[in-house]
Amino acid sequence: MDASLQPFFHPAGIAVIGASRDPAKLGFGVARNLTQSGYPGVIHLVNPRGGELMGRSVHRDVASVPDPVDLAVVVVPAAAVPDALRACGARGIRAAIIASGGFREVGAEGAALEARVGEIARELDMRIVGPNCIGLLDTHLPLDTTFLAPPPPVPGDVAFISHSGAICAAVIDWASGQGFGLSRLVSLGNQTDVCETDVLAPVASDRYTRVLTLYLEGIRDGRRFIEQAGLVTRDKPVVALKVGRFAAGQRAVASHTGALAGQEAAYNAAFQRAGVIRAETNEEMFDWARALAWCPLPARREIAVLTNAGGPGVVAADAVEALGLPLAALADATVARLRGVLPAAASVHNPVDMLASAGPREYSECLAALVADEQVGAVMVIMPPPPTHSAESVCEALVPIIRASSKPVVVSLMGENLVRRASAVLRAEHIPDYRFPERAASALATLVRRAAFVATPVPEPVRFPDVRAAEARAVLDHAAAGFLPQDDVARVLSAYGIDLPRIALASTADDAVAAAAQLGFPVALKVASPDIPHKSDVGGVLLGLSDADAVRAGFVAVQANARRAHPLARLDGVHVQHMLPEGQEVIVGAVQDPQFGALVMFGAGGTEVEGVKDVAFALAPLPRTEADAMLDGTWAGRKLRGFRQVPRADRDAAVDALLRLGQLVAEHPRIVEVEINPLRVRPEGLGAVAVDVRLRLHRD
Amino acid sequence: MDASLQPFFHPAGIAVIGASRDPAKLGFGVARNLTQSGYPGVIHLVNPRGGELMGRSVHRDVASVPDPVDLAVVVVPAAAVPDALRACGARGIRAAIIASGGFREVGAEGAALEARVGEIARELDMRIVGPNCIGLLDTHLPLDTTFLAPPPPVPGDVAFISHSGAICAAVIDWASGQGFGLSRLVSLGNQTDVCETDVLAPVASDRYTRVLTLYLEGIRDGRRFIEQAGLVTRDKPVVALKVGRFAAGQRAVASHTGALAGQEAAYNAAFQRAGVIRAETNEEMFDWARALAWCPLPARREIAVLTNAGGPGVVAADAVEALGLPLAALADATVARLRGVLPAAASVHNPVDMLASAGPREYSECLAALVADEQVGAVMVIMPPPPTHSAESVCEALVPIIRASSKPVVVSLMGENLVRRASAVLRAEHIPDYRFPERAASALATLVRRAAFVATPVPEPVRFPDVRAAEARAVLDHAAAGFLPQDDVARVLSAYGIDLPRIALASTADDAVAAAAQLGFPVALKVASPDIPHKSDVGGVLLGLSDADAVRAGFVAVQANARRAHPLARLDGVHVQHMLPEGQEVIVGAVQDPQFGALVMFGAGGTEVEGVKDVAFALAPLPRTEADAMLDGTWAGRKLRGFRQVPRADRDAAVDALLRLGQLVAEHPRIVEVEINPLRVRPEGLGAVAVDVRLRLHRD
Repeated sequence: MDASLQPFFHPAGIAVIGASRDPAKLGFGVARNLTQSGYPGVIHLVNPRGGELMGRSVHRDVASVPDPVDLAVVVVPAAAVPDALRACGARGIRAAIIASGGFREVGAEGAALEARVGEIARELDMRIVGPNCIGLLDTHLPLDTTFLAPPPPVPGDVAFISHSGAICAAVIDWASGQGFGLSRLVSLGNQTDVCETDVLAPVASDRYTRVLTLYLEGIRDGRRFIEQAGLVTRDKPVVALKVGRFAAGQRAVASHTGALAGQEAAYNAAFQRAGVIRAETNEEMFDWARALAWCPLPARREIAVLTNAGGPGVVAADAVEALGLPLAALADATVARLRGVLPAAASVHNPVDMLASAGPREYSECLAALVADEQVGAVMVIMPPPPTHSAESVCEALVPIIRASSKPVVVSLMGENLVRRASAVLRAEHIPDYRFPERAASALATLVRRAAFVATPVPEPVRFPDVRAAEARAVLDHAAAGFLPQDDVARVLSAYGIDLPRIALASTADDAVAAAAQLGFPVALKVASPDIPHKSDVGGVLLGLSDADAVRAGFVAVQANARRAHPLARLDGVHVQHMLPEGQEVIVGAVQDPQFGALVMFGAGGTEVEGVKDVAFALAPLPRTEADAMLDGTWAGRKLRGFRQVPRADRDAAVDALLRLGQLVAEHPRIVEVEINPLRVRPEGLGAVAVDVRLRLHRD
Repeated sequence: MDASLQPFFHPAGIAVIGASRDPAKLGFGVARNLTQSGYPGVIHLVNPRGGELMGRSVHRDVASVPDPVDLAVVVVPAAAVPDALRACGARGIRAAIIASGGFREVGAEGAALEARVGEIARELDMRIVGPNCIGLLDTHLPLDTTFLAPPPPVPGDVAFISHSGAICAAVIDWASGQGFGLSRLVSLGNQTDVCETDVLAPVASDRYTRVLTLYLEGIRDGRRFIEQAGLVTRDKPVVALKVGRFAAGQRAVASHTGALAGQEAAYNAAFQRAGVIRAETNEEMFDWARALAWCPLPARREIAVLTNAGGPGVVAADAVEALGLPLAALADATVARLRGVLPAAASVHNPVDMLASAGPREYSECLAALVADEQVGAVMVIMPPPPTHSAESVCEALVPIIRASSKPVVVSLMGENLVRRASAVLRAEHIPDYRFPERAASALATLVRRAAFVATPVPEPVRFPDVRAAEARAVLDHAAAGFLPQDDVARVLSAYGIDLPRIALASTADDAVAAAAQLGFPVALKVASPDIPHKSDVGGVLLGLSDADAVRAGFVAVQANARRAHPLARLDGVHVQHMLPEGQEVIVGAVQDPQFGALVMFGAGGTEVEGVKDVAFALAPLPRTEADAMLDGTWAGRKLRGFRQVPRADRDAAVDALLRLGQLVAEHPRIVEVEINPLRVRPEGLGAVAVDVRLRLHRD
């Protein structure tokens, strides 16, 4: 952990600057919560009026606070914050939580004040959490610097890091109602200094924390987040809810890749790379977190379902299979064992339906049989209010089996009033329960996903040693902003091992005919212009010209078409190239994402990319496993393995092009976007050809 | 309502056959619930042992039960049910709920017993609900024939019809915990007689029922369900959870349409046609049902969000936009009004962020401003535990505004313990509350969808009067099972107004050359065989042959290729046709669904249909609006409106072909599958050509 953050997580003494006796003020809440939290260090309340509060005498200024003191909680009005920080700095305090609002979130004036606060902190070498935040909570230390109304969260093993204070308040209250505790809570507010990435490692280092949950409205430094989160996720699961997906503005783009590579594609790629599990809703995040905190990881994917009625079993089977998980085929010995326990009319195959008469004995003996089955990876137990027994008596019988099992078992307690006590029995033993089988299935799927993640060694991004980076840089450094001329594109890509077909630039019809003769008929003609991105859209491309006359007429035609569509475009002539061999056409592109850097795309090529949307994304440079997954995640990629009469294509060549293009863009941030469309992937063993490539450079 | 079902819903007297004093028996539970339910009719308890139960004397047999009695609840062991039914029949009872289990659900012997029960019922002209069911509940009559442990559901306005008794038990308990009541509950069990479709109208006719919810494991008679549900949904919303999607076996198919037209596509098309809203989970179904029962329908789609913190506002905006709903742009007057109420730092644009200081006054005045805004269709109010006020004081202030509003308002009460009383305040006033904005947004989206549905008149399926059904029937009636020969296909489609290009069948190479000369070069050759479905997959197709020599050589080649791939196939010669004009290629297909009959498909054509999966389905015959929606629901269909250099195609011709193909299959159930692939849709005004068509007939 960064030593400068130590005082936030293990403070020896805390000064509350702005502690107040007025219950309507935040300074009252902070003083109350901190003194009542059981915090084992020293608490100093500071207010110029002095007096007494919470049975403690109040210091008139921070200068008079005795040792130890290494953390300040600042709750004075925004305008008074700069002075308060200076006073803290003078007292030797190097860490402050600024709970006060009235900064960037209220407009330009507040933003200016926040900038000043940031400058002061840098001057004083002081770390800041906030402003405009709820502060920190640690239920085990314990410590509570928030001003939230009681009750505080119960101690638990799920940590929550949040960009929103209101979401913290809601989650604390909701979690207590859902019967799970929190370990640490960090409200980051405006993040004028400390951001989500900074606190990942400190929070993960807490021995009580088994799962980290994140509410994110953005990420400040994408690559650093991936690095830090990637370290954490090897050890502890991280589940993130990222919101604000519709808030982001659109950027100006000139490629299919750019048009499709939105902020969401980049976030998904980043979470994928870092091993962060992305939830779609708050409930999903905490449904998953409870299972991750409390259950062992499954050694295999097959799920067994144990129910006392057919309907819920069907619901569970549907939900399990919809999530791509197989239902376990039970071993013969298991089936025999179940038969020994259950009435003849029961179903002893998965889902196991014990019938409505099932009580504690049937539930516990059948569950024992299922967890003992080697073909079962995890179990979902379903319990609508049992007609002849209480749900809690059944749960009490289940607890010892679940606690003793090395396999995850989750319980769907279907109901509310009749299952409330049963739910409490399970929660006390850290066994996750869910109201409906659909949510229980979703939790199991997350456990399976996490198990697969930890079982896979961290893949290394591929960096080909044979690339000639200096050669590419030489071309790029001297090129103007905008689209790179075609010859330079060929040189840059060739330096990265992606060969373009030989192309001749003809400035007259006679030149074109001569070039065609040299390259060999039939040829393609393509108007050469740095100002026309989609040349085929304007009649600027002609294919399959098989003699001199056709080339001569074609030369005139493509130039005239281009001129008509773009009267002001520079026309450098016409490119002539030998018609390429056949193959499957895909698109391989890359853009610079403002948050995460190089982002590559693979998918179905052609002119309809944005309509068909058969594409996948990853951050570059990327490991071969991710490139493989991108191909398998698209129909265009799966088709490379062959489809009906379409022969198996040179899939390795496509992966190679994807990896190399990613490396190129990662190593040359001036490339805003580059797109091979199509990449023609020839039959197996014959490689791939970058038929058409466009590359655009940034201004600076 | 079917008069024979009247005794289930308005019984004058009920006999409990098998009423028991043993609390472990279902017959005890039924007697207890019925006598305690407040049922206003006459209750007769029947048990051969006689005696007394629940303060009533027990009849020794049903013969001795006095008038009135028109409904029996049978809870005797399965083997005794036939005799019990006969006794009831002799007493003049014509309606029975068989709660007992031990029938079809326990295997072959039980199924035989159930078949006997069905025969007896038909003999006696008796209607049966069950066996193996929980029975009926009406909280308003009131009436409770179930054996479920108390408490019974509280009276409400949501009806629940279920194929699973256990799901009934869970829903009753869960609903009471969620604070909403049920109006009627029907557990259908094995449906040996009365099925889900039968009870739709009777349940919908209940004046207390505002929404119907259905838990379905299947539908017995698809077209009848659509007809009955379609009548109900014009009047009251119906939300269905259909499970068992993975249980269904695959059928044998020979077309892309058949391969893609699974049971789920058919159910979705059926729900779409009937106006039934399909939920994916139990929670979703009741989240939506509460909103549909309690809220007015919005007159427009624009949503306003009112929050006291930024984070929840972002979550809400994300959720609203992810569901395809626009955030309302507030009128200037509204913005001014909000400014008058809120501090300067608040955000007065949608989402409206009142800041954490907001209390009852701010919430209520801002909500009043939002519902008064003509540009707002519906409002989501968000309330994390307010730091300075109680959530219930805020809700109390909101209630009068929400009750007075003609626009729907839903509330996201984020938390649990701190918002419980607030939740009770809202529920008592029939205002739906949800824990998180995501679920509140989903409820609003359902209201918007329902509003659009009721605003649209029932569209009429198109039946073209110009079709020559008798001509098609004459061909089909005389054709053998399996693939119809190409000439007959042309005749059948032509009778339905779908013209195939002129085709000549050549049995020798010379014939082929002559035909090509007559049709005009260039031509296509296609091997003619009823046994080879995918002719292009076996080299059985050659395109663009431009002279006699090419045709001669091609004739030999396609026959040889086909012979090699299918040595046993019948070869009728080779079809010759003039090469077709250009156009966009789509697929139009239809199959007979075993549940719902004719099901049409539209989408991206070619050989990769099953990989690309850019397809949409509807039941046929279909209204033009549904055909339009199918086209707009696929990229292939949207592209017909033009895309980049691809000109606008004759979209109307594609719709026409889809409607006509649907009508053909609907009117000729012997057609198992028919597929036009591709249908080449020419530029606007030039029509569409069915380039290749295959049609397969059923055996009988």
